[in-house]
Amino acid sequence: MSYQTHILSIGSALPGPPIDNATLCKSIGVQPEWIDLYVGTRTRYFGVDIESGRQTHSLADMAASAAGQAMSRADITPAEIGFLVLSTATPDHLMPTSANLVADALGLDRIPTFQVQSGCSGAIAAFELGGRLLDESRPIGLVIGADTCTKHLRLDRDVISAMSPSELINLVLFGDGAGAAVLSISQDGAQFGVTALINRFCGLGREPGQQIDWFGLADRDLDQPGVNEDYKAIERWVPRLSRDVLTELIADAGIARCDLDYLLPPQLSGHMTERVVKQMEPAEHSLEISVVADTGNNGNALPFLQLDALATKARSGQLAAVVTIESSKWIEGGMVLESVT
Amino acid sequence: MSYQTHILSIGSALPGPPIDNATLCKSIGVQPEWIDLYVGTRTRYFGVDIESGRQTHSLADMAASAAGQAMSRADITPAEIGFLVLSTATPDHLMPTSANLVADALGLDRIPTFQVQSGCSGAIAAFELGGRLLDESRPIGLVIGADTCTKHLRLDRDVISAMSPSELINLVLFGDGAGAAVLSISQDGAQFGVTALINRFCGLGREPGQQIDWFGLADRDLDQPGVNEDYKAIERWVPRLSRDVLTELIADAGIARCDLDYLLPPQLSGHMTERVVKQMEPAEHSLEISVVADTGNNGNALPFLQLDALATKARSGQLAAVVTIESSKWIEGGMVLESVT
Repeated sequence: MSYQTHILSIGSALPGPPIDNATLCKSIGVQPEWIDLYVGTRTRYFGVDIESGRQTHSLADMAASAAGQAMSRADITPAEIGFLVLSTATPDHLMPTSANLVADALGLDRIPTFQVQSGCSGAIAAFELGGRLLDESRPIGLVIGADTCTKHLRLDRDVISAMSPSELINLVLFGDGAGAAVLSISQDGAQFGVTALINRFCGLGREPGQQIDWFGLADRDLDQPGVNEDYKAIERWVPRLSRDVLTELIADAGIARCDLDYLLPPQLSGHMTERVVKQMEPAEHSLEISVVADTGNNGNALPFLQLDALATKARSGQLAAVVTIESSKWIEGGMVLESVT
Repeated sequence: MSYQTHILSIGSALPGPPIDNATLCKSIGVQPEWIDLYVGTRTRYFGVDIESGRQTHSLADMAASAAGQAMSRADITPAEIGFLVLSTATPDHLMPTSANLVADALGLDRIPTFQVQSGCSGAIAAFELGGRLLDESRPIGLVIGADTCTKHLRLDRDVISAMSPSELINLVLFGDGAGAAVLSISQDGAQFGVTALINRFCGLGREPGQQIDWFGLADRDLDQPGVNEDYKAIERWVPRLSRDVLTELIADAGIARCDLDYLLPPQLSGHMTERVVKQMEPAEHSLEISVVADTGNNGNALPFLQLDALATKARSGQLAAVVTIESSKWIEGGMVLESVT
């Protein structure tokens, strides 16, 4: 099979310890049974201290940690890295970019660095750009996906007590984390080859399904939440877009649905992922690799965390499909990977 | 000569009318002579109403307007656009991306869209990614640079009266605007060919020269400015980095300094640009194309505005060099262009 890009290694970083539903519910004043019933997420990781609201892990901290682990696993030195792409919805500042702070932390210099603003499909955008940036002069590069969602949520108890259910659910759904991959133009030492990739805006004329505001100087209204989700639009569109992307990916890769050994579906929440997978109709023997029930929805990091789990299972020649859907203004993405270890 | 990328057309958009120093000074309470002496910028364009502070032009508005002009000038329809790259430091929201709002406004769909977080060198990052994304299946694409700096500045008079000179200068330096280019894999109908391109992080171990904060939920301190610049570091590093990038670009393009008909230098302010150009030592006959004294520093838009001015002057076979330096965490960039009309 011919590959667009090779993945040498994956790394990940979660700001510990995991916060379980009992601990979270003590803070936000809802019943753990409510989370089990409607969300299906068991634990998540917060880059802020849940008691004080103080930030404990920056995006750059987590991204550098995940990238460092990926480089170490592939035995790649900073001097070998030819470019860096970081996808995120939640940068530390607007300027300087977190991508450049990560480059500095990793000891990288004199290479192109890109920070792509993106939501749940950002990992695929990073893989597409990474694949395009690989050439003979830059045969190895780094792609990273990371998010610090919790710094956009309000964790103070007096605010929480007045929250509507549609805002409370964000506290239960989201988490923080980072993942990274070392890409190579060559198959030498690779774990996976990318055999097909889709990354495409599909939001013409569609209302945004998610809005994340960060606030400027004059326009901060503390009564407005920083994160808004249109869960009805998400429930309506994500399953069918996921199904269609999977069908197209399989055709692009020249394989059949039953050839897939692993399915890495979109990770919105534990229960929502179950509904999405049902619509995707994977073959019975395909193993689903989902992590969101344990990690929370940490956006750009999630597909990397799924790939990290895949890397521990996949045997040579096995095939996996990743599908991602960004609801903010609708991007559909995915990849087919072959294990080549 | 062989080209990495072809530029079919350039477009630009400035939120009018221009604000001259007399008008600005009435609002911010400094003497126009002070601006003439220390900054050398005559007019700028604000996407906010200077009296009320209300936003009149979003980033997506300006970017769509510039891109629409570029598409119209090259007679390119939305269906022909194979990708969209938007570089900016100052997006409208974190999610959805302004890139996707622009795609929607232009009637684009089912193409990859990327929003790159970047400062003064973002135009070159967009040209690099645009060049990498062009292929037989996507022979034409759109790159855009835009910034709405003023929404990060405080224009209320009681705040301004207490400002230090280092904060006041931001009100005088910055402006808003957008520029765009239609790129093509083919030389047919092209205005310019890109013969060399440098785009590279060079900030290892260097302190940031600029920080732009946008504010989350708990951490908004109204006593802190949203934009901080280390003007000493900028004055120290930008001229010498510009000189070195120009020297390297010329070598990469296989030409001599005296072959350059036009120099498009970094655009910090009127006076600062004069100092940078002096260090770059262009040949005497090279014509400098600078716009900042008339447009203000609108970041990612500026190199496109310079290219728009170049397009009205350059004759077939003439050569131009663009140099950009991003001080936020230090990126050096530039291109050599040949007019092929």
